[in-house]
Amino acid sequence: MEKAPKLDDEFFELPRKGLSDEDRKAALKELKAYLDHYQQNFLGYQVNQNLAEVREDLAPFLGVHTNNIGDPYVNSNLATHTKPLEKAVLKRYAQLWGIKPYTSENSEQGWTSAWGYVLSMGCSEGNVYALLNARDYLSGKILLANPGPDPGLLMSQAEVWAPYLDTPAKRANALQPVAFFSADTHYSVAKAAHTLAIPTFGEVGAKYYSEFGEYETCGYTGGWPAEIPSNRDGSIDIDRLVTTVDFFARRGHPILLICNLGTTFRGAYDNVGEIAQRLQREVFDRYSMNEREFSVNTKGGTPIKDKRRAFWIHVDGALGASYLPFLKKALADGLLKPDEVDFTIPDFDFRVEQVSSIVTSGHKYPGSPWPCGIYMTRRKFQLQPPPMAAYVASPDTTFAGSRNGFSSIVLWNQLARFSEQEQVEGIVQAVQLAKETAEALRKLVGESKVEHTDGTLSVQFPRPNDKIVRKYSLASVQTGENTTMCHLFVMPHVLDRKALDSLLADLKADDAFEPAAAMGVEPAPVEYQASESNEWQVLLGTNRGFM
Amino acid sequence: MEKAPKLDDEFFELPRKGLSDEDRKAALKELKAYLDHYQQNFLGYQVNQNLAEVREDLAPFLGVHTNNIGDPYVNSNLATHTKPLEKAVLKRYAQLWGIKPYTSENSEQGWTSAWGYVLSMGCSEGNVYALLNARDYLSGKILLANPGPDPGLLMSQAEVWAPYLDTPAKRANALQPVAFFSADTHYSVAKAAHTLAIPTFGEVGAKYYSEFGEYETCGYTGGWPAEIPSNRDGSIDIDRLVTTVDFFARRGHPILLICNLGTTFRGAYDNVGEIAQRLQREVFDRYSMNEREFSVNTKGGTPIKDKRRAFWIHVDGALGASYLPFLKKALADGLLKPDEVDFTIPDFDFRVEQVSSIVTSGHKYPGSPWPCGIYMTRRKFQLQPPPMAAYVASPDTTFAGSRNGFSSIVLWNQLARFSEQEQVEGIVQAVQLAKETAEALRKLVGESKVEHTDGTLSVQFPRPNDKIVRKYSLASVQTGENTTMCHLFVMPHVLDRKALDSLLADLKADDAFEPAAAMGVEPAPVEYQASESNEWQVLLGTNRGFM
Repeated sequence: MEKAPKLDDEFFELPRKGLSDEDRKAALKELKAYLDHYQQNFLGYQVNQNLAEVREDLAPFLGVHTNNIGDPYVNSNLATHTKPLEKAVLKRYAQLWGIKPYTSENSEQGWTSAWGYVLSMGCSEGNVYALLNARDYLSGKILLANPGPDPGLLMSQAEVWAPYLDTPAKRANALQPVAFFSADTHYSVAKAAHTLAIPTFGEVGAKYYSEFGEYETCGYTGGWPAEIPSNRDGSIDIDRLVTTVDFFARRGHPILLICNLGTTFRGAYDNVGEIAQRLQREVFDRYSMNEREFSVNTKGGTPIKDKRRAFWIHVDGALGASYLPFLKKALADGLLKPDEVDFTIPDFDFRVEQVSSIVTSGHKYPGSPWPCGIYMTRRKFQLQPPPMAAYVASPDTTFAGSRNGFSSIVLWNQLARFSEQEQVEGIVQAVQLAKETAEALRKLVGESKVEHTDGTLSVQFPRPNDKIVRKYSLASVQTGENTTMCHLFVMPHVLDRKALDSLLADLKADDAFEPAAAMGVEPAPVEYQASESNEWQVLLGTNRGFM
Repeated sequence: MEKAPKLDDEFFELPRKGLSDEDRKAALKELKAYLDHYQQNFLGYQVNQNLAEVREDLAPFLGVHTNNIGDPYVNSNLATHTKPLEKAVLKRYAQLWGIKPYTSENSEQGWTSAWGYVLSMGCSEGNVYALLNARDYLSGKILLANPGPDPGLLMSQAEVWAPYLDTPAKRANALQPVAFFSADTHYSVAKAAHTLAIPTFGEVGAKYYSEFGEYETCGYTGGWPAEIPSNRDGSIDIDRLVTTVDFFARRGHPILLICNLGTTFRGAYDNVGEIAQRLQREVFDRYSMNEREFSVNTKGGTPIKDKRRAFWIHVDGALGASYLPFLKKALADGLLKPDEVDFTIPDFDFRVEQVSSIVTSGHKYPGSPWPCGIYMTRRKFQLQPPPMAAYVASPDTTFAGSRNGFSSIVLWNQLARFSEQEQVEGIVQAVQLAKETAEALRKLVGESKVEHTDGTLSVQFPRPNDKIVRKYSLASVQTGENTTMCHLFVMPHVLDRKALDSLLADLKADDAFEPAAAMGVEPAPVEYQASESNEWQVLLGTNRGFM
């Protein structure tokens, strides 16, 4: 194995007098050489490193500050923006996700369209914003769609009525949303719930519904879990979900459900379509949760009346929502060989009427030099924005203030470069190569030691030595007392097989699975040790991933 | 006035079949021409457009995805990161802000160092994260610094004791922080408080302390205001602040105060040093708010004991915190002429012992193609991170998951390019030019119609016609029934005077202050109309800005 470059902190120190041009350029060159080295072998994280071809297209825009402050669909006075490109990107995603692209038309038709924006931070921002909107929607804050002269966000005192809210206890719960997500959910979702002070069913259950062992009626023993259990493939256990949601819905709580498309460890897809159908039939219809009547008192005006759902389904499609439309099309067109198609792709987007919001990352698919992504919702569910944006001349409908305008150029350029057909062919290749790689790894390390689900991009295998872990940027998860697994993701830059072939060759070495100490190399970063009795751990399963 | 380019939405449409290389490159060229045009006249927003020189340095890094996931000081398994540059940038800011740069040493000395990270979203992210940390610190969540085997973040049930918490009512308030900020505060702060469910003093006052007109004891009539009043120059009214904080502190509430350095409209600086001294003497000492005793019950273990302050002062230095260290030095070195120095720069950073966190933007100073910034706090106040980051091998101590690694390259490169002395000279020029511009504008439109405070970068003047507003990206604010003001900011790219000279020439035209309709041009974006009786408006003053 060739010698790996290392970044030395001292080499990048910034003295008070700055650096000479020569020293500065030498340091940047050193950084570039380091990044080049690790880019070529990048396998461990769900990131597309296929960016060399766009460098030239994008370089001219490094010379100007672009900023899409405010709403994508309303130009602000800040002229160096890229909103036409942002709007084109959003339109394309709306088409892929089965919803009418945004229209500003204020007819009933207009309100059925999509609304969204390009995220500056990536899906962590998107998940926080989705959960914030869900919280405010479910607890009766005023919507953009609400007519009348009294929009308001803070301090609006909503009252809610529905036939099933027939006791004071249920009415007390009726504006208190409870969050549900699976053990394989990305850690940013639990963090978002904490940030927004939205309790999870595990917390509400532990606090209010444990004295008489109520959790047993949902099939749990010893207490409420923090998350809905996952199936072996990483998808959510739908039976458990339905039973658990029913328990809380019956007590008056509005339901906030987060589903996953491409979990961070196994790359699994929750069956959003089936979840929505079953919850609708077995829970939402039963309690008439489609139409609660809201009345929001306003200062001295007529109260605003509104009918709303008592649930919000958010889809964290960080990885999957960007390519599943293409994989679905590939399946429909018969582009996968018979021995490769032992899987289906669930309905997951706005075609599922119960889905209220979707996020996806831009740096996973289609690829970007930095994290970015898409937040999309149904326009009729947009909350009333705070009015401060008067001074930007564009309403403050997004989470950020200043917004990265360059990300819209990056995404636009990527979507322009490839036709839908090329995207379809690309994902077919990736799914095939993931399966092939799993088979090759099974031959190498043993049938039972490699995990892969058909139709996903993730392959999991036993953690090799530190040198290999470092070389390929592999991330590892302890899955049993003495088992640590790594995974790789077959992203677009992996399709040339170079890094994969190199990994397979390296794994054949005698010391491939030896611990670092034996090899006299610097160990790979020590995994961060969370204490055993951490309260957070109550909230956490073992299959969480990392991006 | 030359014809201004326009971006046409249709030109950037993304068809399903993608675009040919030719069409794609033509569209990017069109975008570039548009941005070039508006960049050269960019005056209205506090953004540094001086980026042409760094384009070449940065271009190579567009070809690789860099990601600083996790803690800046702990390398993850994701090898394509730029953490050494991030650490160098943070060290430089720590030095500028009077705090020992980060050290991982777990001695008492070590815990007095700084900790921070480079923001992916800009100061909106930084303000949310500061307020989240303040909320969790003040309500007794467990800190990184807390010894013992039971770290925890959620559901930790803290108990708090202090001599002044001598009634059940005060004890009930003791873990419920209340937020205070001025009428000139950036809108993202009120949004962050709403996001995090932290009530402002106005909300708490309206709900609990209004029946007997208690607001009158703080000098308010008719009810609690939503914000602390500002002085005419845009800085916070310190007398009012102290009186109001005292009212809530006396009732047991922990205090969360947000100060501003460079308000968005007037560019004003709150006197953080004086505020801290007066609050310490007149409020915090009086109630012994420096040392409340916390006891956090943990699952089956010994409770964690801790002594903490009952206050958190956060400094939103989006604009000012980046250049005030240089302006302070310029004053100390006598670099400003006697007729220019009728101002002082307040103490504002970690030299003020009561300051717990500071944020600043990177795209205002020193300049970046997209929004970014710095979050910094005292290491001893860091909260225990959630443990999920085990799989990244770097603790999840920041707000985002994936973090923009390119921003650290941009900031590092900017800090390396300029010596401290050049920075000092640059800000002297900017302060001088802002004053000169105010004088030139006064000659042009009348003495009383132009506003500018010495030592700030903002000049406010009556709104010209739409064509001029557009040409110079001016933002406008209605300041009276018939008065709309614009402002410009003298940022580094403005120092060559080209755009300023052009604006002054355009303002001499006969129709310079005529409304758009009379001129047959497309009007500038219609200001977003917030309804009159908006609940949010209770919370809002009239001097809010926009970036």
